[in-house]
Amino acid sequence: MIKSFFKIKNQCLKSNARRGRLKTEAGIVNTPCFMPVGTQATVKTLSSEDILSAKAEILLANAYHLYLRPGTRIIKKLGGLHKFMNWHKPILTDSGGYQVFSLAGLKKVSDEGVRFQSHIDGSYHMLTPEKVIEIESDLGADIIMPLDVCAHYPVSRDYAEVSLERTTVWAKRSKKEFKKRQKTGKYQQFLFGIVQGATFPELRKKAAQELVNLDFDGYSIGGLMVGEPTKLSHDILKTTLDNLPKDKPRYFMGLGTPLDILEAIKSGVDMFDCVMPTRYGRNGTALTSRGKVVVRNGAYKEENKSLDKNCGCFVCKNYSRAYLRHLFNTSEILGPRLVSYHNTYFYQEFTLKVRQAIENNQFEKFEKSFKKAYNSKNR
Amino acid sequence: MIKSFFKIKNQCLKSNARRGRLKTEAGIVNTPCFMPVGTQATVKTLSSEDILSAKAEILLANAYHLYLRPGTRIIKKLGGLHKFMNWHKPILTDSGGYQVFSLAGLKKVSDEGVRFQSHIDGSYHMLTPEKVIEIESDLGADIIMPLDVCAHYPVSRDYAEVSLERTTVWAKRSKKEFKKRQKTGKYQQFLFGIVQGATFPELRKKAAQELVNLDFDGYSIGGLMVGEPTKLSHDILKTTLDNLPKDKPRYFMGLGTPLDILEAIKSGVDMFDCVMPTRYGRNGTALTSRGKVVVRNGAYKEENKSLDKNCGCFVCKNYSRAYLRHLFNTSEILGPRLVSYHNTYFYQEFTLKVRQAIENNQFEKFEKSFKKAYNSKNR
Repeated sequence: MIKSFFKIKNQCLKSNARRGRLKTEAGIVNTPCFMPVGTQATVKTLSSEDILSAKAEILLANAYHLYLRPGTRIIKKLGGLHKFMNWHKPILTDSGGYQVFSLAGLKKVSDEGVRFQSHIDGSYHMLTPEKVIEIESDLGADIIMPLDVCAHYPVSRDYAEVSLERTTVWAKRSKKEFKKRQKTGKYQQFLFGIVQGATFPELRKKAAQELVNLDFDGYSIGGLMVGEPTKLSHDILKTTLDNLPKDKPRYFMGLGTPLDILEAIKSGVDMFDCVMPTRYGRNGTALTSRGKVVVRNGAYKEENKSLDKNCGCFVCKNYSRAYLRHLFNTSEILGPRLVSYHNTYFYQEFTLKVRQAIENNQFEKFEKSFKKAYNSKNR
Repeated sequence: MIKSFFKIKNQCLKSNARRGRLKTEAGIVNTPCFMPVGTQATVKTLSSEDILSAKAEILLANAYHLYLRPGTRIIKKLGGLHKFMNWHKPILTDSGGYQVFSLAGLKKVSDEGVRFQSHIDGSYHMLTPEKVIEIESDLGADIIMPLDVCAHYPVSRDYAEVSLERTTVWAKRSKKEFKKRQKTGKYQQFLFGIVQGATFPELRKKAAQELVNLDFDGYSIGGLMVGEPTKLSHDILKTTLDNLPKDKPRYFMGLGTPLDILEAIKSGVDMFDCVMPTRYGRNGTALTSRGKVVVRNGAYKEENKSLDKNCGCFVCKNYSRAYLRHLFNTSEILGPRLVSYHNTYFYQEFTLKVRQAIENNQFEKFEKSFKKAYNSKNR
């Protein structure tokens, strides 16, 4: 039985950045952390062995996707998600609320839950807050998210308010179901509350306060940086964080570019996930200490340099840009795979350096030098 | 300077199977060997690190493909094919004669060579025997094939005879060009002669004898097992091998299933290559000690077993058939990759066991037990 799920080890003296750790049955996660996205129980193109060698300590999977395929029952029968995908470190499952609202066909939201058609075969399903907790309990992830209502940007205040009210009621029901299941469950899990409220500061404040009253293990920030102006994102983030307890982990869902992550860490966020490293990887864009390198670029046709001279991953140690370009040019699967690996490794190295900087009280200095190199044109 | 390119270490007492080794500047290859096919300087879905960990000692690449993309000049400039693809063990390059005849657009064969249109962009190219040797010298593979005329099955005797005459003349010109280049070349390379002659025993015999007179480092068997009846293949193979010197390596191009390879080893063949492990891998068919396992099969939906209980590869050690099926079912690239890896590893383990069996004078026993298991229905 884990008593101290989250612990802050160092607090930056000049910003709200903090260096902490999460403790779960599957292991320790050092924060700030970046979680590679393994939606369907695989981080696209990469094996669990790759994710381990890229130094990730936690990865993310999606309850909605896994519920539809291969089905929760099968994963449970085979010993849970960790065993299924051969990843024995911590896993966070997103409820898939976002996916229900963005991917599913005809959907009908009621107080009870969401009735929707599968985006795969059109079959009808009903997800309720309780059902989602059941799915995530069966999958056996270490950290789980409740079902929420995702309002896309832009949205009217009225709609945002109604969505938020429902999200809060669902959070309460999720917590109740979670408590019940934890009494008999095989795994000790941790449940987060998700702060919604679109771009309305007073709604975000209300959301945070109501969730805090319900006392979750951590707090996620949903529906932010989804297209609204940057200034507004920052204001909303500040309001949200101001209304969350300092001693609980904060998770910015779906963020982001290294620079966005750096900004959020400075504000006091601890956890991140994003499809960017692998999506960019599949499209042939490498993220490096000197910004983006578009591998297909004709300029790299004869380029013997690695993707990133400052990177120690096996791709940068062994393969030239010319070789990687050739792989993309000939539609060889190894291309997307190698660039996805590099990008995944790059994000892990990046958060590792952030943690070291906070420990050494040099976060500000690190931020400045990272930004300077990342924005340089000398690739 | 390597003096003894090929050496036979053990000769099976009950068949023509032999256990030998090839020695090249890039290293030793134990024979009988199976060469994973890396047509475009990558074994599809796999990295060079994977091929190494799957215990392959040599791989195959294709001069025609690499000449078109990324271009010989670029690979040469970047330090040769080994460095380009980060594979520092031996490489064999096929000339691409087969690809010119099967892939290229409009082509015109003359005494001089083949004029053809690229299958990629329609551009015009001329490959002559001398040009092909130049390309392969620039790529820097350890073992190289000359340009030949590939007659597809079925073919008339007249056509086969004319094609063969041309192939022999080209072999002579290739050898001449090869000798010239070896005097100044950076790498010590070994040139094989390719025995053609379609399904006509007397043509095969003539082809072998004429090539032997030209004294190549080894002999390839081309255009066999391309659709003709099995009995005929075996007769042709026997005639061909009977007319080749015992102390030179024999390479059966493009073969094959494990059972076909076993049969050819028994007849005295030393080297093999085939796209089967990776092509089957991409389509979700695993080759195992108990025959084919079609991963997509609904029967494996909840199957916790590995692909092959007798296999020690990381896929079999860590992943269930249910997980692999899920990956194919959700079109995740990791699926083709993991099954391709297993298949590649399986072929290497298979040839390793063949070599041990010949060493221990137990080839016949091994053949019998391998066949029995491979043909069993208990998967």
